[in-house]
Amino acid sequence: MAHINGSVAFKSRAHTLPTKESSHASDHETSELEGCLWQDKDSSHDLDRGVSELELGLRQEPLATYADSRSVNTIRGLVLDCCQQWKIGHGGSGLGMAAVATALWRHHLRVDPATPDWFDRDRFIMSNGHVALLQYIVLHLSGFKIWTMEQLKGYCHPTALDFTNIAKTHPEIEFDGLDMSTGPLGQGVANSVGMAMANMNLRATFNRPGFEVINSVVYCTLGDACLQEGVALEAISLAGHLKLDNLILIYDNNGIQSDGPIDLTFNEDVNAKMRACGFYVLEIPDGNSNVAAIRTALEHARNHVGQPKFLNITTTIGFGTTVAGTCKAHQMAFGEVDIEKCKTIWGFDSNSTHFVPEDVRQDWANVPRQGQELQFQWKQTLTKYAVAYPELAQQLQSKINGDLGQQWRQTLDKYEVPCKDMPLRQSSAQVYDILWRMVPFFGGSADLSEPNFMIKEAKPVFGTPRPGIENVSYNGRYVHYGTREHGMIAVANGIAAYAPQAFVPITATFAMFQLYGASAIRMSAINKVQVIHVGTHDSIAEGACGPTHQPVELVNLYRSMPDINYIRPADAEEAVGTWMLALDYKGPTIIGLNRGAVPLLEGSDRHKVSQGAYVLTGTSEALLTVVSTGGDLYRVVDAARILNACGVATRVVSMPSMRRFEEQSDEYIRSVIPWDGRPVVSVEAMSTHGWARWSTASIGLNRFGTTVHADAVMAHFKLTAEDIVRRIQGYLGDLDGKNAQTAGWKNI
Amino acid sequence: MAHINGSVAFKSRAHTLPTKESSHASDHETSELEGCLWQDKDSSHDLDRGVSELELGLRQEPLATYADSRSVNTIRGLVLDCCQQWKIGHGGSGLGMAAVATALWRHHLRVDPATPDWFDRDRFIMSNGHVALLQYIVLHLSGFKIWTMEQLKGYCHPTALDFTNIAKTHPEIEFDGLDMSTGPLGQGVANSVGMAMANMNLRATFNRPGFEVINSVVYCTLGDACLQEGVALEAISLAGHLKLDNLILIYDNNGIQSDGPIDLTFNEDVNAKMRACGFYVLEIPDGNSNVAAIRTALEHARNHVGQPKFLNITTTIGFGTTVAGTCKAHQMAFGEVDIEKCKTIWGFDSNSTHFVPEDVRQDWANVPRQGQELQFQWKQTLTKYAVAYPELAQQLQSKINGDLGQQWRQTLDKYEVPCKDMPLRQSSAQVYDILWRMVPFFGGSADLSEPNFMIKEAKPVFGTPRPGIENVSYNGRYVHYGTREHGMIAVANGIAAYAPQAFVPITATFAMFQLYGASAIRMSAINKVQVIHVGTHDSIAEGACGPTHQPVELVNLYRSMPDINYIRPADAEEAVGTWMLALDYKGPTIIGLNRGAVPLLEGSDRHKVSQGAYVLTGTSEALLTVVSTGGDLYRVVDAARILNACGVATRVVSMPSMRRFEEQSDEYIRSVIPWDGRPVVSVEAMSTHGWARWSTASIGLNRFGTTVHADAVMAHFKLTAEDIVRRIQGYLGDLDGKNAQTAGWKNI
Repeated sequence: MAHINGSVAFKSRAHTLPTKESSHASDHETSELEGCLWQDKDSSHDLDRGVSELELGLRQEPLATYADSRSVNTIRGLVLDCCQQWKIGHGGSGLGMAAVATALWRHHLRVDPATPDWFDRDRFIMSNGHVALLQYIVLHLSGFKIWTMEQLKGYCHPTALDFTNIAKTHPEIEFDGLDMSTGPLGQGVANSVGMAMANMNLRATFNRPGFEVINSVVYCTLGDACLQEGVALEAISLAGHLKLDNLILIYDNNGIQSDGPIDLTFNEDVNAKMRACGFYVLEIPDGNSNVAAIRTALEHARNHVGQPKFLNITTTIGFGTTVAGTCKAHQMAFGEVDIEKCKTIWGFDSNSTHFVPEDVRQDWANVPRQGQELQFQWKQTLTKYAVAYPELAQQLQSKINGDLGQQWRQTLDKYEVPCKDMPLRQSSAQVYDILWRMVPFFGGSADLSEPNFMIKEAKPVFGTPRPGIENVSYNGRYVHYGTREHGMIAVANGIAAYAPQAFVPITATFAMFQLYGASAIRMSAINKVQVIHVGTHDSIAEGACGPTHQPVELVNLYRSMPDINYIRPADAEEAVGTWMLALDYKGPTIIGLNRGAVPLLEGSDRHKVSQGAYVLTGTSEALLTVVSTGGDLYRVVDAARILNACGVATRVVSMPSMRRFEEQSDEYIRSVIPWDGRPVVSVEAMSTHGWARWSTASIGLNRFGTTVHADAVMAHFKLTAEDIVRRIQGYLGDLDGKNAQTAGWKNI
Repeated sequence: MAHINGSVAFKSRAHTLPTKESSHASDHETSELEGCLWQDKDSSHDLDRGVSELELGLRQEPLATYADSRSVNTIRGLVLDCCQQWKIGHGGSGLGMAAVATALWRHHLRVDPATPDWFDRDRFIMSNGHVALLQYIVLHLSGFKIWTMEQLKGYCHPTALDFTNIAKTHPEIEFDGLDMSTGPLGQGVANSVGMAMANMNLRATFNRPGFEVINSVVYCTLGDACLQEGVALEAISLAGHLKLDNLILIYDNNGIQSDGPIDLTFNEDVNAKMRACGFYVLEIPDGNSNVAAIRTALEHARNHVGQPKFLNITTTIGFGTTVAGTCKAHQMAFGEVDIEKCKTIWGFDSNSTHFVPEDVRQDWANVPRQGQELQFQWKQTLTKYAVAYPELAQQLQSKINGDLGQQWRQTLDKYEVPCKDMPLRQSSAQVYDILWRMVPFFGGSADLSEPNFMIKEAKPVFGTPRPGIENVSYNGRYVHYGTREHGMIAVANGIAAYAPQAFVPITATFAMFQLYGASAIRMSAINKVQVIHVGTHDSIAEGACGPTHQPVELVNLYRSMPDINYIRPADAEEAVGTWMLALDYKGPTIIGLNRGAVPLLEGSDRHKVSQGAYVLTGTSEALLTVVSTGGDLYRVVDAARILNACGVATRVVSMPSMRRFEEQSDEYIRSVIPWDGRPVVSVEAMSTHGWARWSTASIGLNRFGTTVHADAVMAHFKLTAEDIVRRIQGYLGDLDGKNAQTAGWKNI
C-alpha cells in the first residue's frame, strides 16, 4: 500500500471507552453509535482523502481491547489525581491523549526500561512539553525505575518535595526516559527532525543486508500551538525535503489553545499543508477512545517509506470532565466532584487515588519484557555484525560509547597556522575542514555556506539523491539548511541529544542571524548538548550589508546566558584554540568570527584560549592595559604599538571568552586585568554593556552601525588604531594620574 | 470570477522581451517559441490547478507593450550599471524582477511621488530586501525627488559617497518611498501582514458607502528564502486566518538561493501550502517578460475578495547574463562583456551607462501624473466625507496627523493606584485597560491573553466574524495572535510603520518567549517604530513552569540593544510611569512585568520612571546603597528595613530603566549612585552581567532557575529579604571599611 501524498483516515465508532462493566467494546458501542461518522457510506469525501481498504479492515475490529481500555482509564485516573494533589497541573491534554499514550507506549515504542539510554531505542520527544505528566505516568507504568509513584505524587509540589522531585512541569533531559527538555513550543518538533536525521545517517552508515543494527525511529507529539511556531514550521519543511521516513509526528488535535478554541487564530487546512511539505498524512478522528485505530496507524506509519509521517489525531482536552473541550481544561485541578464522577464511570473506586489496578500493572509488565527481548536481539545482531563487518562495528561502537577519540587533539596541537593575513572565518574554517575528517561533525549553514566558509572544502551532503545534484546521500554529513536559522539550531540540538558525541552538530549563519534562533540556542544550554554554532561577519565590519546585518548587542546575550561557551578568537592561532575548547566543552559553544583579514598576532596562544583571557604583549609594569576580543584585537595591537612609541607603556590583553576568564583564580585574573588604580580600557566595536567589570573605561559602539565598507565603517565610528590611540590619550589626560577605579567607569 | 482555493496560471510565450528592432512583441516571439508551455493543450494538469478562461484571454494579448518592454530593458540596464560601478551589488533578482517592477510600479501602485507619505498610498514592502536596488530604480523612474541618478550612482560606494548616500544595500525606512527597513529575511512578509491589518481596520472603521476614504492595499515582494523563514510562515498563517484580502504577496520564484538551486533544501508544493493557509494563488510561469500577464494578475488579485493573494511569479535570476539562473548571479558585478552583450540585445548603446531613454522617461512620467490625480480625488472625497460624517472625519484626521492627543497624559497624571498588593502584570493591565479607550492600541497576546492580563477587560477582537465567536470584526483592535511570537512582533512593526501613531501596536507573551521574536524586536528599533512589547512572568518567580520559562539573561539583550526603551517597573505606581514613558517614546518599548503580588512601595514615583533611576528611600549620607528593579525591588526594601534596623544606614534605589538613567547628567547620576568609596549593591534575580557599571557588588543568579513555586525558588537561590541581608552583611564584613571601588566589583 502506498499513498504518496495521500492520507488514510482511521475512523472511530465511539467517544467513550468500555468499562469493566461493559467488557466487550465492540458489542457495547456498536449499538450506541449507529449512524456516526465511520458508517457514512458517501465515499466521495473519503476518496478525496485517499481512504483505503485499511479502514474497512478496522471497521471489523473493536475500538480497544479490554486491556487497552483499562490502561487508558488508569492513565486518566492518574492524571486527575496528580493535578488534584497540589491543586495545579497541566492535565487536560493528558486526559485527551491517554489512548495515544497507551497505543504508543504499551505497543509500539522500542524502549527497554531497564536500559533507559539504550542506543537503538526509539526516541520520543514531547514538543507539547506541558503534557509531561502523561509521559511520567507511562514511564511509571512501563517500569522505568526512577519513575516511582512517589515521584508522580510530587508533581507540582510547591517545593518539588524539597527540590528532589523529578516530575517537573516540563520534561527535563537529565532524567531517564526523557530524550529532550522541552517546554518552549515548537522546539521539540525541530529536535525530533534532528534526531531523525541522526538516526537516518546511522542507518545509512551502518545497516547492511541482514544486519539492521539501527532499527529505531523517532516519535514526536505536538499540539496545535507547535504548528503555529515558526521553528516547527521550518523544521517540518526541512523534514519533508529530506524525506525522513523514520520520523512520526503525532498531532494532538484537540482544537483548544490557551486563549480558547483554535478557531480564534488558526483555521488552515493542516493536512493539506503537511502534504504540501511532503508528509504522509494519517487521520484518526477519534483519538479519545479508538486505541485500535491509533495502533494500526502507528504500525502503518512506521512501515510507510519515503516520507515523514503526520498522524492527525482528534482528541478532547479534559476528556470526561465537566470542562472537557474548553480552554479551562488546559491547566487546573479538576476538583473532587469531577474526579469522583469520572472514576465511577471508568470503573474505579472513586475513593482511591493514584491507583493502578493489578491487571493494568500486569498488562504493562509486557513493556519491560519486550524491551529486554528487543535489546537481547539487538546485541546478538551486533555480535554477528562485528564478525561480518569488523571495521564498521568498531566505528559504531565508538558512537555508542560517545567517544571523539584524541586524534583531533593531537592534530590541533601540532597544526601550523598559516603566517599571513586571513579572515577569521577562513582561519577557523581551515581548522574545521581538518576536523571534519576525524570528528563526527554533522551540519552546515543556513544558506550561507560560501560566506560562512563551510564548504570551501567540498563535503558529502546529507539527503536523498536528486537528479542534477551531486554527492547527496544519507551517508553525508553536510546539511544545506536553507534560510531556516531557528529550525537549524533546534535541529542541531536534536542531533546532539540523539546520543552524546555520536555526532557533533554544526550550525552556521551570519552572527546577526543567530538571533533568529536565540531561543533554540538557549535550549542548547538547557539541554546541555554539545553543539557548535558558528557566526561569521560578527561585527559592524561585515561588508556593507548595513545595520540589519551588524551585531552590536549580541555578545551580551551570550555572555549572560548560562552555560553558553561563547568564544571570539582574534587570529588564526586563537581559532585553533577555539576549536579545542569547543570540542572539550560538553555543552553549546558559539564561535564569533569576523569577516575581513586579520594578521597573525605576536603572543597569541591556542592553549591560553581556554583560560578566557591572557596577556598578549606588554609587562605587568605597564601603565595601561587595553583588552579586546576577536576581529577588533589587531587594531588594538596597532594602537598599543603607537602608544608604546609615544611613551605610554601599554599592555594588550586578549579576552576570547569572558566566561572562561571569570572562572579563573583571583590571582590569575588580577595578573591579567590589574585593579590597582591603573587604567584598563576595553575595545570592541559593539555595545560596551558588561565591560565595566573588566575595565575602567570602554571604547565601543552603543548604537547601530551603518552601510559602508568595513574600513570606512571603522573610520566613521572612530575605531581605527589611530582613533583608539586618540581616545585613550584623551582619557589618560582627563584621568591625569588619578586612580582609575575611583574615577569610575566611562565610555570614552 | 471566483476561484476560492483555486489558482490561475498566467502563462508566457517568451523568455526575452522585444527590442527596439522588434517592436511588435507578439509577432517577434510567437514564431520563436512555438510549442512552449502556454500552448500545451493537455488540460488535465490545468484543471487541477483551476486554470480559467482568464488565461485564454491572455493568450490573445501581446506579452508586453512596447513601452513596458522598453521600461523592463531600461531597468535591467540600470541594474547592470549600478552593480558594475563599484564592482559589487545585489543585481541578480533585480534583473529577474524588472518585468514585475514595471507592471507594479508603472501601472498599479497607488502612490504619489510628490507626496511620499500620502496616507492612502499603497504600501510596498520588499521582504527580499537585498533587491533594494530595483526599488531605488523604480523610485527614480517614478519621479521621487530624492531618488536622483546621483543616488543610484552611489549604490555600493565604499564610503557611501562619504556617508551621504541613501541607496543602501537594504532599504531603510527613513528615506522617501521606502515603507519599511528590511534585510533580515522573512521579516518583510510579517510587516506586510501588519500593514494589511492596519489598512483593514481603517477600512472597516472609516469607509462608508460612497466614501472609500481608504482605498489602498499592501504589496510585498519576497524570495524563496522568505518562504523558509518561520517569521514569514507564522505571519502567512495568521494572514490567511484573518482573510486579509488587501494583502498581495508577490513571490519572486527564481529557484536559486545563495547556496545553489533551491532543490538543495526546499521542494515543497508552495502553491498548495499557501492555499492550505487560506491564500488565493495566482501563477505566472514567465515573470521575466510577460508584463501583460503580471498586470492582469495584479489587477485580478486586487479585486479578488475574501482571501489574501499569493502571486507565484517564475523569474530568472541574473536574466540575460552569462550567470543567469545560477547562484553566482545573486551578488556580483556582471562584468563589461555581459553588460555590452545585454545592452546590445536590449537595444541600447552598449557604451552608455546609467541611461534612461527619453521615451522611457516620458512613459514613467505617467506615474506622478496619476499619483497627483489619485490624491486629488482622495482629497475631494475627504472633503465631502467631512460633511457627511464629521465625527469620523475628525477621527480619521487625527490618525492622518499621527496625534495621540493628551487625554492619556491627563488621565495617567491623576490616576490613583490601588493601595494593595498586586501582581505587576495586573497593575500594568489596569493602566493599559484605561488607555485602551483613548489610545489607538492595536494588538494582543501570543495565546497568553489571560496570564498576560491582556483581556481582563473584554475588547472587540480584530478579524472576520465567525460562528460561535462573539465580538469579532475588522473594527476590533484586540488580536489573538496564536503562539506566533516572532510573527506577532514583526506584524506589530508593520502596524506601527503603516502611519506614525495611527495605531500603537501592543504585543504580549511571557517575557521569556519574547526571545522567539528577538530579531523582530531588533527591527522595531531599526525601524524606529513606536510599539509596546509586554513581557509578563519576567523572572525565575514565574510560577513553577521551570527554567525554560524563566528569563535570567534577557535583560542584557535589551539593555544593550540600541534604541530599545526597556522598562521594568517595581510597583503599581511605577507601572503608571512606565506607560507614560512608553507613550512618550517614539520607538520600541519593552515592559517587563513580574507574575506574583508586590506591595505599593513607599517613595515610588510615576514621574521619576523617565529618569531611569531614583532614590526610593534613605538619605545621601547612607553607608550603603542597594539598587534593584521590577519585581525584585520589594524584597530589597524589606532587606533595607532590616539593615537599617541593624544599624547599617541603607538607601534604596529603583532603576526601572538603565538606559534612561545613563542619559541623565553626571550630577544626577552621582546623586543616585554614589561613587566615592561607599558600597553599592545591585539585586536582581537574574544575571549580574552589566551591573558592574552601577554597583560595587551584585546579588543575582548566574545560572538557570528551577521548577518550584515562586516563593520556594527565591529561598532556594538565597534571594529572600533575609538572604539579601545576610549576603550584604557578609560583603560589608569582607570589605571592612575599605574603599568599595578599589576593592573591585564582585558577585556576592
